Amino acid sequence: MIAEFSIVPIGVGESVSATVAQAFEVIEASGVAHEHHAMGTNLEGDWDEVMAVIKACRDRLLESSNRVSLSIKIDDRAGATDRLVHKVDSARRKMRDASRG
Amino acid sequence: MIAEFSIVPIGVGESVSATVAQAFEVIEASGVAHEHHAMGTNLEGDWDEVMAVIKACRDRLLESSNRVSLSIKIDDRAGATDRLVHKVDSARRKMRDASRG
Amino acid sequence: MIAEFSIVPIGVGESVSATVAQAFEVIEASGVAHEHHAMGTNLEGDWDEVMAVIKACRDRLLESSNRVSLSIKIDDRAGATDRLVHKVDSARRKMRDASRG
Amino acid sequence: MIAEFSIVPIGVGESVSATVAQAFEVIEASGVAHEHHAMGTNLEGDWDEVMAVIKACRDRLLESSNRVSLSIKIDDRAGATDRLVHKVDSARRKMRDASRG
Repeated sequence: MIAEFSIVPIGVGESVSATVAQAFEVIEASGVAHEHHAMGTNLEGDWDEVMAVIKACRDRLLESSNRVSLSIKIDDRAGATDRLVHKVDSARRKMRDASRG
Repeated sequence: MIAEFSIVPIGVGESVSATVAQAFEVIEASGVAHEHHAMGTNLEGDWDEVMAVIKACRDRLLESSNRVSLSIKIDDRAGATDRLVHKVDSARRKMRDASRG
Repeated sequence: MIAEFSIVPIGVGESVSATVAQAFEVIEASGVAHEHHAMGTNLEGDWDEVMAVIKACRDRLLESSNRVSLSIKIDDRAGATDRLVHKVDSARRKMRDASRG
Repeated sequence: MIAEFSIVPIGVGESVSATVAQAFEVIEASGVAHEHHAMGTNLEGDWDEVMAVIKACRDRLLESSNRVSLSIKIDDRAGATDRLVHKVDSARRKMRDASRG
């Protein structure tokens, strides 16, 4: 499955990039396939490994913050793998095919 | 913590209420504090029990559907409990106090 | 359509209920059908009226906060109305029918 | 502001990439700064231009589908621009600084 998540500490100030950097560290250390983007991080793996990474990020942020807000979106498709790259490619290809007529 | 989640099968047709009913069954059987609303279900409990319910719903739907989409939003605040009811009350009270001047 | 949204100011402290109360005021004043719950507010109406309410909440919060985070989820179904109540009822009914066999 | 959104038609089948390609066309044609990733598209611009693109995608999908589901997440920070790239960079830099001690 692919999951996207973002985590933000509430009550630590307007700039949260130092805190987000802590989550990045946890993610890099996990070894789970991922890509960061401007609004969150996409992870690919099975339910338990992906959720373990997200929980570890939350645990890390709760060490320095009393309140965190998480947003998780999951696209779970049986038998589909390597979708971090392929999903966008697939839509792009169909867009090109359609414009070619 | 409080979590809100919604789950929708992709590819089973436009009406998904029969499938959502399966998720409701799993939630009721779990015993975890919850409230259903028009756009999802709010759950209150610790991380592991809440995530176990969400995973059980996903497992149930994947029995009859090849692809599911989940959306999860979490508000995790140390030391705060019974927030399914109190969060709305708290904002309402402050709205009233403000309008009284 | 039905939309759910939540809005949270970033950088104003851990308790955000006073700020959420400002959003509640904007919503009540709008006259748009809504229900508050522990993780957000559900609104029902057409695209433009619902989005106008959400934008007005965001404008209000940006008066006192430099950064806000919004989450919006939309279920847009042609020809469907009065769904704030009926969506949950519909799933509940199917759950009962299924348990009756 | 930066907004992330994803849109999925409900009831058209399990593979939605052809439909997502239609949304890509609308986005490319809009001229608004954007990046596609595996779980959605990030857009950067002011509220009205970003929301106009999202609405146009929804209108386009409702031509061929009776029901669509949208998810929108917004990070709105006064005075901040060019954040599609800079947000990730900023967290990465702080991660490196922290690991250097």
